[in-house]
Amino acid sequence: MTITHTTVAAGPVVPSTGALRPLPLGDLRLTGGYWADWQQRNADTVIRHCETWMERIGWTGNFDAAATGDPFDHAGIEFVDSEVYKLLEAMAWQLGVQPDDDLADRYDRLVDRVAAAQDADGYLHTAFGRPWQRPRWSDMEWGHELYSMGHLLQAAVARLRTAGGGRLVDVAVRVADHLVEVFGSDGREAVCGHPEIEPALVELGRATGDRRYVDLARTFVERRGHGLLAPIEYGQEYFQDDVPVRDADVLRGHAVRALYLAAGAVDVAVETGDAELLRAVETQWANTVAKRTYLTGAMGAHHQDEAFGADFELPPDREYGETCAAIASNMLSWRLLLETGESKYADLIERTLHNAVMVAPREDGRAFFYANTMHQRVEGTVPPEDEVSRRALSSLRAPWFEVSCCPTNLSRTIASVQSVFATVSDDGLQLHQYGDYEVDTVLGDGTRAAFSVRSDWPRSGRVEVVATTDGDEPVALRLRVPSWSSGATLDVAGQAVPVEGDTVTVRRVFATGDRIVLEVPVHARITVPDPRIDAVRGTVAVERGPLVYALESLEAGVDVRDVVVPAGAEPVDHGADDVRLPVRTRAVPDPVGLPYGAGTDPLSVDGPREVRLVPYATWGNRGPSTMRVFLPVE
Amino acid sequence: MTITHTTVAAGPVVPSTGALRPLPLGDLRLTGGYWADWQQRNADTVIRHCETWMERIGWTGNFDAAATGDPFDHAGIEFVDSEVYKLLEAMAWQLGVQPDDDLADRYDRLVDRVAAAQDADGYLHTAFGRPWQRPRWSDMEWGHELYSMGHLLQAAVARLRTAGGGRLVDVAVRVADHLVEVFGSDGREAVCGHPEIEPALVELGRATGDRRYVDLARTFVERRGHGLLAPIEYGQEYFQDDVPVRDADVLRGHAVRALYLAAGAVDVAVETGDAELLRAVETQWANTVAKRTYLTGAMGAHHQDEAFGADFELPPDREYGETCAAIASNMLSWRLLLETGESKYADLIERTLHNAVMVAPREDGRAFFYANTMHQRVEGTVPPEDEVSRRALSSLRAPWFEVSCCPTNLSRTIASVQSVFATVSDDGLQLHQYGDYEVDTVLGDGTRAAFSVRSDWPRSGRVEVVATTDGDEPVALRLRVPSWSSGATLDVAGQAVPVEGDTVTVRRVFATGDRIVLEVPVHARITVPDPRIDAVRGTVAVERGPLVYALESLEAGVDVRDVVVPAGAEPVDHGADDVRLPVRTRAVPDPVGLPYGAGTDPLSVDGPREVRLVPYATWGNRGPSTMRVFLPVE
Repeated sequence: MTITHTTVAAGPVVPSTGALRPLPLGDLRLTGGYWADWQQRNADTVIRHCETWMERIGWTGNFDAAATGDPFDHAGIEFVDSEVYKLLEAMAWQLGVQPDDDLADRYDRLVDRVAAAQDADGYLHTAFGRPWQRPRWSDMEWGHELYSMGHLLQAAVARLRTAGGGRLVDVAVRVADHLVEVFGSDGREAVCGHPEIEPALVELGRATGDRRYVDLARTFVERRGHGLLAPIEYGQEYFQDDVPVRDADVLRGHAVRALYLAAGAVDVAVETGDAELLRAVETQWANTVAKRTYLTGAMGAHHQDEAFGADFELPPDREYGETCAAIASNMLSWRLLLETGESKYADLIERTLHNAVMVAPREDGRAFFYANTMHQRVEGTVPPEDEVSRRALSSLRAPWFEVSCCPTNLSRTIASVQSVFATVSDDGLQLHQYGDYEVDTVLGDGTRAAFSVRSDWPRSGRVEVVATTDGDEPVALRLRVPSWSSGATLDVAGQAVPVEGDTVTVRRVFATGDRIVLEVPVHARITVPDPRIDAVRGTVAVERGPLVYALESLEAGVDVRDVVVPAGAEPVDHGADDVRLPVRTRAVPDPVGLPYGAGTDPLSVDGPREVRLVPYATWGNRGPSTMRVFLPVE
Repeated sequence: MTITHTTVAAGPVVPSTGALRPLPLGDLRLTGGYWADWQQRNADTVIRHCETWMERIGWTGNFDAAATGDPFDHAGIEFVDSEVYKLLEAMAWQLGVQPDDDLADRYDRLVDRVAAAQDADGYLHTAFGRPWQRPRWSDMEWGHELYSMGHLLQAAVARLRTAGGGRLVDVAVRVADHLVEVFGSDGREAVCGHPEIEPALVELGRATGDRRYVDLARTFVERRGHGLLAPIEYGQEYFQDDVPVRDADVLRGHAVRALYLAAGAVDVAVETGDAELLRAVETQWANTVAKRTYLTGAMGAHHQDEAFGADFELPPDREYGETCAAIASNMLSWRLLLETGESKYADLIERTLHNAVMVAPREDGRAFFYANTMHQRVEGTVPPEDEVSRRALSSLRAPWFEVSCCPTNLSRTIASVQSVFATVSDDGLQLHQYGDYEVDTVLGDGTRAAFSVRSDWPRSGRVEVVATTDGDEPVALRLRVPSWSSGATLDVAGQAVPVEGDTVTVRRVFATGDRIVLEVPVHARITVPDPRIDAVRGTVAVERGPLVYALESLEAGVDVRDVVVPAGAEPVDHGADDVRLPVRTRAVPDPVGLPYGAGTDPLSVDGPREVRLVPYATWGNRGPSTMRVFLPVE
């Protein structure tokens, strides 16, 4: 097998420096299993679903209308351009993974429609700037102009790195040049209410080699936290405009905004050698994970402002846990993993992907959660397949939303998901995520490293790595040992040895057929929340490997409200699809008067019986149900 | 003492029928103590505070501007007319309680400004209907036109019942006649997004004897729940437009809307003899109290839509508990008490008044809570005294709000608070709330009943009732025995006898000086929440009589997050102002990684020490503090 490397063949994040380097996108090929299946479903279904919906409700049509120069009614909220861009990004990654003439043709036609709407000076937004619209940059708080253009830049970067250029890249460069002129150091001192332009500009700078874009990203990051945005009801932390990025110690405010900004700050710090800024974001990540993150990896505890709550304020029932925030969290963790090489970032990516991200799509890829509760108190309704939904309050997955950032975000994430599976260093290859894939790449020192990885992860904890080339030089093959595991062993040439720590490294000259097997014990376990998380005091959850499990009323046979776990109960593990837990049904009479009193013991009406739990990410696929992850201990 | 009764001397609610009848407002006079002090502070401070703020920010000025006929910029949100009306209502009740030439003059001048803005056909709203404004009734969902006019009607009813008429009454009658024409059975089939017009129309019908107003109220109640309002993001339950009132079994959606509507539905049911409608609202009250009400009596668990949550969804930290919802809850309970005579309604009024309502004003009456949390996680900030606040997110009481429904609502409530203290029946006088007051009234059968009541309630459980007139006929004097109490005794002529049930009645011919003493044991006690309230599992609260207590970090000396109560701990009661509880400070190291794991016991770093709790209603008066009501049990 001969791999052709070009400088443009790369995934979503390509820092100039860092402990680890991302692989060119084509160097890691999914060959089967969960992620290959989902990537195929994304190509076959999700991408088409997004195209169809946006065509139907006029979001792509906005570009056509804008191109005519005549007045038109703009369809959708002001930032729907960004959905088209995220779809283009998804298409670009997918085309980079798997050539597809039909998709390529649809992509080109959509790019042409976008390009036609660009103004002569480079500005491109369908909701601002025309005589009958609001003026450009007249609403930095809510206009989402830079946010939308940021997604355009990201889409162009995807194309640049998978196809080497093209019309969308030309469009994006003209946009970026225009932004440098308007907002550069001599320009308008402003920031966008919704971060996104920051990582986008750095990535475009990396992909094009144009340093001005990195400098502008830095300018936006540095301007933030100085009150450039007008006061709003939710407070300036909503915008992260309360404290300069380098002075903050935790993420706060609107979760997606906070995470996109932090990702951009890492990019800026890496490209400018700003160790202080990098340390600040590392600290923010650590504090946010320790005190403001759900068991699923989800972030965002408030519906009202889609925001982080205070430390340890993590209600499962009112969890917002926006799908886009989970995606954004991985964008941040991935950047920190590349920069530091620390395995904890890959651990969170794994947890977040398998639970908080992949809970969003319905099994058929045609409906999505926007917010993701961990405690469904009332049986949801099934939104109609042919209607645009609100944000799916108390409902199951919906085909499309009035504000529909999540489906396209999910699509671009799945299309490029393998980009977070492995990295290289000067003399090593690091496997962070497992599954069925082939990796064939070149280390920093020029050594070729090629392996076949086989694993039914995370349903199984067995990872088999077989060398697929005869090496001349030693390769340090590093495998992640997840923080949730204990008792992992590594079998090298038939000899199983216990492994300690969060990675294990085998350094040798590999010959074709050399086999390494990592065995990570995966069995269902009880998980107890920190006692400061008030909302889940006195409860336990069940996990298996990185998978969080949930109880649905469909399995319990009663409303999950009435289920309690006997003290000391342990889950029974018959495999990933058959995890059971002994529970009782609690009978509590309805209060007469207020539900507060001297305290009486509730009655339990049945002896412990085993009920099947389902992986949290799969809940709600069988119809309306009440559901909870944290179950009260009797 | 000679009391002059006129048909117009009455309080806020005067049903045509019912188990109990309200007293004319002047028949019960507060003579001292907590409520007399607050009523004086309301007269001296709160009313003036509201006048000053509304003058300063142009809300009263809207009427002047509207009267000119010239275009003007309307100040404030579209329903600020209603704040002026609630202020006028507060002034009217206060003038009914205590003549005051200066207040009377201010009242008259404000009425003149309102009256000048009325259109020729009776319509009166400063934000709609002029050529440069949105057309009348063009936004039934959010326009609040009927809502605002409802408050005008209520203000007029207060004047009619305390002064017998006047210019505002004439204005209100013209408004109501106009509404009958526009929305009556042959008119426009619509309802207002925010209920309020319903109880207002019934009250105006009662006060004027014009049955058409009652009929229109009935029409509005009956129209609701049939989808007349356009769909919104929060769902139609926000507007109570999801289910007809008579078919619903629990209150839901926006809490203030739900409660005002329910109050109006009781009014309609009473005036039309609609037993089915009445039973429906009784059921809604019972289910709402049992499953959707906070320990303080507060209602509304969601910030996002200011709404009730699902059953048992009562997070203390994200409690919304809007002050206006607590006031509205008492409006509903009071109507149900009058209709049914059942003491449980007076119990909830007591709890709600002392905790959920009176937590709102700062001790000096110059700042207010809008939302009322039971768990302040971060030390609040003190809003500036001279700035209009948002809804006081994470802040202490604020002097005024952009949407400022609560201060004027509180003012009208305090000005007429004694109206809920006692009622009469054909041959009896019922005392529902205690304090220092004189009651001198006439029973349904014409018998005069006059008593002096003395009590430091609820700080003390001793209530002394002394007859102040020599009667000719027997009077059935009924005293409420609160549901939170046990072991109450009644001393009649020196003989203490145990009382059972929720009321105790002494029927006799009273002579001046006859004395009855109700002794209700009041001591601090531990309260345990229903196990289905997930958000407070494993915690206890402390109550004393109807007062809920809270722990402030100012007293604990540490963030309340770190305080735990030893299992089995009991409060130590040195009186209402010195209730103490043994606590430990818990030391939990910050999580490394996620705050979930196999479960480790936190360390307790100090032996139990007693800390002072404060009545919940008084928290935050001494500056920023973390605070919680429900304390985790170790």
